[in-house]
Amino acid sequence: MDSRVREHAETLVDWSARIESGDTVVVSVGEGAHDLAVAVAEKVGERGASYHPVYASSEMGRAYLRAHDGDFSESADLERVLYEQADSVLSLRGTRNTSASADVSEETRQAYRKSRQDSREARMDTDWVSTVHPTRALAQQAGMSYEEYRDFVYDAILRDWESLAEEMSRLKEILDDGSEVQIYKDSDETDLTMSIAGHTAVNSAASVAYDSHNLPSGEVFTAPTATAGEVRFDVPMTIRGTQLQNARLAFEDGEVVDWSADQGEETLESIIETDDGARRLGELGVGMNRGIDRVTDQILFDEKMGGTVHLALGRAYDANLPDGESGNDSAVHTDLITDMRTAGTELRVDGEVIQRDGVFRWEDDFE
Amino acid sequence: MDSRVREHAETLVDWSARIESGDTVVVSVGEGAHDLAVAVAEKVGERGASYHPVYASSEMGRAYLRAHDGDFSESADLERVLYEQADSVLSLRGTRNTSASADVSEETRQAYRKSRQDSREARMDTDWVSTVHPTRALAQQAGMSYEEYRDFVYDAILRDWESLAEEMSRLKEILDDGSEVQIYKDSDETDLTMSIAGHTAVNSAASVAYDSHNLPSGEVFTAPTATAGEVRFDVPMTIRGTQLQNARLAFEDGEVVDWSADQGEETLESIIETDDGARRLGELGVGMNRGIDRVTDQILFDEKMGGTVHLALGRAYDANLPDGESGNDSAVHTDLITDMRTAGTELRVDGEVIQRDGVFRWEDDFE
Repeated sequence: MDSRVREHAETLVDWSARIESGDTVVVSVGEGAHDLAVAVAEKVGERGASYHPVYASSEMGRAYLRAHDGDFSESADLERVLYEQADSVLSLRGTRNTSASADVSEETRQAYRKSRQDSREARMDTDWVSTVHPTRALAQQAGMSYEEYRDFVYDAILRDWESLAEEMSRLKEILDDGSEVQIYKDSDETDLTMSIAGHTAVNSAASVAYDSHNLPSGEVFTAPTATAGEVRFDVPMTIRGTQLQNARLAFEDGEVVDWSADQGEETLESIIETDDGARRLGELGVGMNRGIDRVTDQILFDEKMGGTVHLALGRAYDANLPDGESGNDSAVHTDLITDMRTAGTELRVDGEVIQRDGVFRWEDDFE
Repeated sequence: MDSRVREHAETLVDWSARIESGDTVVVSVGEGAHDLAVAVAEKVGERGASYHPVYASSEMGRAYLRAHDGDFSESADLERVLYEQADSVLSLRGTRNTSASADVSEETRQAYRKSRQDSREARMDTDWVSTVHPTRALAQQAGMSYEEYRDFVYDAILRDWESLAEEMSRLKEILDDGSEVQIYKDSDETDLTMSIAGHTAVNSAASVAYDSHNLPSGEVFTAPTATAGEVRFDVPMTIRGTQLQNARLAFEDGEVVDWSADQGEETLESIIETDDGARRLGELGVGMNRGIDRVTDQILFDEKMGGTVHLALGRAYDANLPDGESGNDSAVHTDLITDMRTAGTELRVDGEVIQRDGVFRWEDDFE
């Protein structure tokens, strides 16, 4: 076994999920995640916790959903029962075919998803963590060889999370104390300001101790309002099966008033026109994971990339808002990414430069 | 997918487990049983039942047990919670390595097994069925090529169970009405009599409807007492890692008084000397599955082989005894098999020949 699989398991169990003696841990194993599952079972055993394995097979799911008549209203949800008894749920994703469920109708999918809402909520009430085991299918989706993709994934996962969390807490403090964020690019159609006054930034350090549930993670995010100006998203991505390139948005008084894209403009338009909330931003996120050094069109990795900023059209997270307050509401939450590592690019908080050309002011290379 | 995998799933879901609309089904998937699991998910979906998949990975189990300190007294047992909510539990065995847990100490195994007793009992309270998906590892254990082993397994599983159940019910009637069974071989040191008076035979037809929980099955068994005479078990088998060949037992008043074997005599002796009950028989079983045509040293198959009879030293099954009565008690239940398909061999009930040279009196070839 690649020693990095064991290190991954250790990071997941100790740093991310904080498993302790006596804990009850559900381990959900994707079809291609067997090796990681074995390493996780070892770590869970070492900690003196107990585990229960679920087989998260997309091929079983696909066969079941295609054969079923689609009425799940009377369908029992044993996962809920399981999650209600669990301290932690570790989801080890890792598919053998990213299109394994491609021939299940959207209608059936939605009906099934709806019938599983209770178990999703029960899972969210645990110390859950989602992670990904590198498979050939995921390498293929990222356009990489298997060897190269494994290096990429482990570079993102096997960080010094303690020191990254500390670095991220600096940015969190700045955002918590700040009122206005500006994203400015000298050479580009990007000069955007937004208010973050009174909002709380989340230090997403890939650990339940930081209320962060994905491994890898590595971003600080908050909820913006009153957005004004223009921004170009130069990191390409696939959304709803369509390639989106150089999406441009213009904001006035917090709302999108104009948009365009070199490719995928119709998809962009359909997102913006979903509902009122889809015209406003729900998230401003700053990627701080330097282990992620390239775009792979997998949002879990791309949005955490050190030296990038992402803005999401749509729903805001409650964690960014004062207790009891709700932020922007929408059926969508679509992240769009802009690269800050180009000359003449600045991230400013209340007029002060926090990051220039992708380098934070506390980093050695800052000029 | 081999069409036999789908037929196997259909037999399991419809004949064996009798899954119906609205049922809640736990599907436990061995590492090598993925294809069968997909086919079972399809059938469960077709029937309108809901399923919950468990990953029964021996490699995860081995890693967990080796890493754990061995004290499972405070360990949660989520399987119990799951089984208590389930109508059926389908165990799809199919390992990728029959020695996957070889380096886990017997002490740890036992401690873990003990801590899981509640979940075992909860499972027994459901309509549970155990079956086996042919893997290369199991083919290897049987000394067969993969192709050949698959043919062997599906010949045993894909029977006309309805008509086999009917045939077995004939034998059950004879045994239920009978008082004394005699196993006699002309040319051999075998002439054994035993009482079955007042006992009830079980028609083990691979269906919960017959209180039979293994697929394949195909035997009729009851509980004997007052055994007298001699018997030679000419079907070789591996017991506790030792090859046992031509075990011979002599009985007086229901107890073993003498024993020998061409190979494995010490193992035979250690079984007999386990406790008082290990000196008496707990089971007389008649194999009636004609799809099983050879010895593979896998007891689940061997003991069901048409034309064989097996006797078990040790524990008797409650199902064979009048309500509230307990049969022979012992820590062991060790099946030993004798081939009835040799010239001059007879199975007699109250002096009447029921089977000669391995052929039942209702079969065409009976002479």
